[in-house]
Amino acid sequence: MTLHQVNSFAAGEWISPGSGARPIESAVTGDIIAEAGNNALDVQAMLNHARAKGGPALRAMTFHDRARMLKALALKLGEHKKVLYDLSFSTGATQADNLIDIDGGIGTMFVFASKGRREMPDAHVYLDGEIEQLSRNGTFLGQHICTSLQGVAVHINAFNFPVWGMLEKLAPTLLAGVPAIVKPATATSYVTEAAVRIMLDSGLLPEGALQLVSGGLGDMLDRLTLQDVVSFTGSAQTALKLRSNPHMLENSIRFVAEQDSLNASVLGPDADPGTPEFELFVKEVQREMTTKAGQKCTAIRRIFAPENHVEAVIEALSARLAKNVIGDPQLEGTRMGALVSNGQKRDVLEKAEILSAEAERVIGNPDNFDVLGADPEKGAFLPPMLYHCASPDAAMRVHDTEAFGPVSTIMGYKDADHAISLVNRGEGSLVASVITHDPNVAREMALGSAAFHGRLYFNNRDSMKESTGHGSPLPHMVHGGPGRAGGGEELGGVRGVMHYMQRTAIQGSPDILTAISQKWVPGAAEIKGPAHPFTRTFHDLQLGETLYSDLREITLADIETFANFTGDTFYAHMDQAAAERNPFFPGRVAHGYLLISFAAGMFVEPNEGPVLANTGLDNLRFMKPVEPGESIRVRLTVKKKTRRNDDYGEVRWHVTLTNKDEDLVAEYDLLTMNAY
Amino acid sequence: MTLHQVNSFAAGEWISPGSGARPIESAVTGDIIAEAGNNALDVQAMLNHARAKGGPALRAMTFHDRARMLKALALKLGEHKKVLYDLSFSTGATQADNLIDIDGGIGTMFVFASKGRREMPDAHVYLDGEIEQLSRNGTFLGQHICTSLQGVAVHINAFNFPVWGMLEKLAPTLLAGVPAIVKPATATSYVTEAAVRIMLDSGLLPEGALQLVSGGLGDMLDRLTLQDVVSFTGSAQTALKLRSNPHMLENSIRFVAEQDSLNASVLGPDADPGTPEFELFVKEVQREMTTKAGQKCTAIRRIFAPENHVEAVIEALSARLAKNVIGDPQLEGTRMGALVSNGQKRDVLEKAEILSAEAERVIGNPDNFDVLGADPEKGAFLPPMLYHCASPDAAMRVHDTEAFGPVSTIMGYKDADHAISLVNRGEGSLVASVITHDPNVAREMALGSAAFHGRLYFNNRDSMKESTGHGSPLPHMVHGGPGRAGGGEELGGVRGVMHYMQRTAIQGSPDILTAISQKWVPGAAEIKGPAHPFTRTFHDLQLGETLYSDLREITLADIETFANFTGDTFYAHMDQAAAERNPFFPGRVAHGYLLISFAAGMFVEPNEGPVLANTGLDNLRFMKPVEPGESIRVRLTVKKKTRRNDDYGEVRWHVTLTNKDEDLVAEYDLLTMNAY
Repeated sequence: MTLHQVNSFAAGEWISPGSGARPIESAVTGDIIAEAGNNALDVQAMLNHARAKGGPALRAMTFHDRARMLKALALKLGEHKKVLYDLSFSTGATQADNLIDIDGGIGTMFVFASKGRREMPDAHVYLDGEIEQLSRNGTFLGQHICTSLQGVAVHINAFNFPVWGMLEKLAPTLLAGVPAIVKPATATSYVTEAAVRIMLDSGLLPEGALQLVSGGLGDMLDRLTLQDVVSFTGSAQTALKLRSNPHMLENSIRFVAEQDSLNASVLGPDADPGTPEFELFVKEVQREMTTKAGQKCTAIRRIFAPENHVEAVIEALSARLAKNVIGDPQLEGTRMGALVSNGQKRDVLEKAEILSAEAERVIGNPDNFDVLGADPEKGAFLPPMLYHCASPDAAMRVHDTEAFGPVSTIMGYKDADHAISLVNRGEGSLVASVITHDPNVAREMALGSAAFHGRLYFNNRDSMKESTGHGSPLPHMVHGGPGRAGGGEELGGVRGVMHYMQRTAIQGSPDILTAISQKWVPGAAEIKGPAHPFTRTFHDLQLGETLYSDLREITLADIETFANFTGDTFYAHMDQAAAERNPFFPGRVAHGYLLISFAAGMFVEPNEGPVLANTGLDNLRFMKPVEPGESIRVRLTVKKKTRRNDDYGEVRWHVTLTNKDEDLVAEYDLLTMNAY
Repeated sequence: MTLHQVNSFAAGEWISPGSGARPIESAVTGDIIAEAGNNALDVQAMLNHARAKGGPALRAMTFHDRARMLKALALKLGEHKKVLYDLSFSTGATQADNLIDIDGGIGTMFVFASKGRREMPDAHVYLDGEIEQLSRNGTFLGQHICTSLQGVAVHINAFNFPVWGMLEKLAPTLLAGVPAIVKPATATSYVTEAAVRIMLDSGLLPEGALQLVSGGLGDMLDRLTLQDVVSFTGSAQTALKLRSNPHMLENSIRFVAEQDSLNASVLGPDADPGTPEFELFVKEVQREMTTKAGQKCTAIRRIFAPENHVEAVIEALSARLAKNVIGDPQLEGTRMGALVSNGQKRDVLEKAEILSAEAERVIGNPDNFDVLGADPEKGAFLPPMLYHCASPDAAMRVHDTEAFGPVSTIMGYKDADHAISLVNRGEGSLVASVITHDPNVAREMALGSAAFHGRLYFNNRDSMKESTGHGSPLPHMVHGGPGRAGGGEELGGVRGVMHYMQRTAIQGSPDILTAISQKWVPGAAEIKGPAHPFTRTFHDLQLGETLYSDLREITLADIETFANFTGDTFYAHMDQAAAERNPFFPGRVAHGYLLISFAAGMFVEPNEGPVLANTGLDNLRFMKPVEPGESIRVRLTVKKKTRRNDDYGEVRWHVTLTNKDEDLVAEYDLLTMNAY
């Protein structure tokens, strides 16, 4: 039988393994099934290809273009996911694990596609925050922008999620407009290779946007520049080695790491046995111990329960784990598959040995357990193993030793403060969870330990039906953690995209900022259009196109009519004496709603035309009250345009209401949907 | 004469220099004027003091409390600034330089105080972004929060700005709730020491919030944890040494660096001699070369002009620099003072020598220049020196050698693309500027080079009167840059505060998120108050307090009355056939403004009471049109409370309008000011 050759995809060519290829074993049978690696890859050519082709092509696309590309890629992967499932069983993953890795990875791409469309502009520059007023008269202003890095993202991924692990980095990278070079862990690289093939074969990606390294990176990291990013997932040891690379340190090259983590889960002090929270806690712990055979960077390694409930938790967990069938992941009855390799199994047993110096094994025996449909001597199988540490304060290794398999340690705590101090002993983790129905407990735990964690997961009877699980990083929320967890951050929606962009403070005149941000800035040139702006299509309207209304007087009769019609007879509008006592008003004043309603009457062009609907209003502030007898004028300016589809787009108008003295009375953004 | 002893302030005690003290010379006379340093400081005691006292005290305060403290500190420094001016002359600084350092530093504190009050909550948790909808029914949601790091900020500062350099880091650190240990550069540490004394003597700071190291840090960095931050300003060489510290790398300890930078300024292709931009450019360059005798990390080191204007720039600059009087900074006629020390002067001359291999000196002669009122042999004086590099593409050292004094190199460029490629040759800088009146040039430069810079400064005739200068980092805008500039970021308002906080993704039920964020989350418990919420004071209102109105029918007559009264006779409200043709409406529908005006009528309690004013409205979205004959109901819930002063506070209400079928018709946040 010829072994499957895990190829690289370098500078536009598929390249099969050459010298330096390493064998890959099946997690289930221990047989060699593939080989990967190449010592002769031209890494400089790969970098050049990405920089010269992939980068410019991606940067020419807008965020919306790239988001649409992500969605199309996700759909394409979805069409072919059966191929990935089939390969993935050999990594030891069950079909439930595949759903996390493969469907989860595809789902992550969909979320980034959606956030790219909804939360980023159909443009090349992302605006970070609002205009900063740097001058009294507004002729000199500031705006933070983010632009695509002009280099390459090098993704060094872990073995446990060959698909999700690639896509969760690739989606934000491509959305940022940056090409990627993906280096999967050798042990499961054949699954990643298949996913890369599906994406490349789709023809959806510009040339140079995605390359794949089967095997080592050679000296690629020594060839990076300030425009490149390295994003690493794996062991603390490897992370430290990469992080210490002198070339990277010397050039301040961005390095994002997601490494070891002694994630904790806390059974709340309120969650006595018999409560829905107690049962939920046991279920979450069991799931985290067995999913992916515990090979999850977010798995629960440290379990904390009130001292008097430790026994009850062990018992309940024992009962649950008794039903956990270990075996060939392709068999229907199997609930937990194999570890990725026998090497990984040995490593887990070594780490478990370290734990056993401080904790006693109370569940699971690696020398005596059943395996369904596979040879436990050949496949990399292990049973879930729970340790109990009776002296968590004195213990050291239970707080710093990550056995990357189905291994956890349970410990008792005295009160919330004690739980916080024990949880924080992990010295930085990806996630900690607290199962509690008491919001005060949640607040106390958050204030005491949020600074030690990238994510805090709370669950209880109210949320358990829709909760996503302690161990699931979601594309919406940041994934990463301080200290031992590597100090990095990934995902978190647009936050994750920013790792591949540079934030730059821009200072200049309103006209300059308008040109750069593609958003009209107050003070920039106002354009008088050829006709009323409501008669102009989305396409024709220009940034800065402005309409001024005539003045309209607001009479006392108007105020009274409005009050009686709407029912809003608030004293500031109706009772002169009471209004005078109010610290903000000189006497009776017009309703804010009257002003903006009149404003609409003053700027609307009533006849059927390209304006389809008023969809909303943002940042309305009333700055100066309007007394009966005063007059107001409206200015309406095109501030921003966001195309939604072939038929229409959203126009954001900047609106000001001023009085006869040109004092600002009110200011807001108006949103309309306009025919294209 | 006894030398001034620059003390440390460690664990609550002022400690005078001991073994290891080093002499400090006057920049102007070369005389030894002080000594600083101590080899026997107990750095562990300092860390313990900050962690045990300063941190908990600061974290007990809200952002607003800390902001008020910053303002009070700034006022106190302002009262005593004459002391700082007087000391600072010995560093070589003129009074104009003092305004940048001392008044600039105080101003930075004021801005952070103001941003803390306006942009951060009166609470302990900062909310980063909005609620993430993680579930269909909204029982499980996400929110990113930022909480104070529970450690210490170690600030290692440069010699050039002994006051601003401290305060620009201290302000965001304290606002974040984190204690600081400040280590100024020895050469100017006597000025920093005086500023620290003013702050400590004020009694405004909690014990342990601020400590000072005169001399070296010993092995302090080896004693840091994941909850600590090191923020460094200085040379690339020292930054690399710190960055490579194995303990810091192993523990992913945060390290922010602001180091070398070959900042560029570009004369736009449109800015011919004779234009206001040409003159402005020469003025900016001259200012950056001479302010602080060029010892500014943001100073212009590389000057780019269109090839055909290089000569004209040299000429104009020559004329301007001829009026630059160098001398004793205390003398009235002096325009440029001394470098900080003769050591620094030698370093600048060495770097200038390196430049001279690729560029010719066209202005300034270090061996022949006038010094007013001081001995040029003893003080650290140098004249402004301009080099001209005729082959900027082939040159290497002009793009990577920072002579940290009054030294710049001018080069010609062919077109905008060429200018971009030359500017980016700096491989990462703090700031680049472009003097242009053409918004398209600005956009092209921004897209081409923003990814290489922390800040891009544009200036022209429109903004020059109010512009703040190429070299001025502002507290509102980020300061830092990628690559050679160190890869760090400081300032930027709230962004700068975040370096001292941990961002954590929180997941949980609406009630849990409400408790943690102190902002009512839709789906969380609604509280029925004892009376109409408009009759309740700011103090009494609780998060979640909710009012439901009755249903009110919207009739066709209402729509017509509203249209005619306001003038808003838009076709969607008035013309059945046209409305039916509209893709969003079934036929004539009620005005959005009618709906929110009626809503006010439905929830307002009209009598005089604690609600003082409706100040604004945010995030209004119309989700479903309302046809004549339909009815709407309003729900009003207290979402967030922000106290403004002793008399009143802002209440943010979450408002929903629903129809008879409970479909959401509109949703928004309403802002009122309520008596305390």
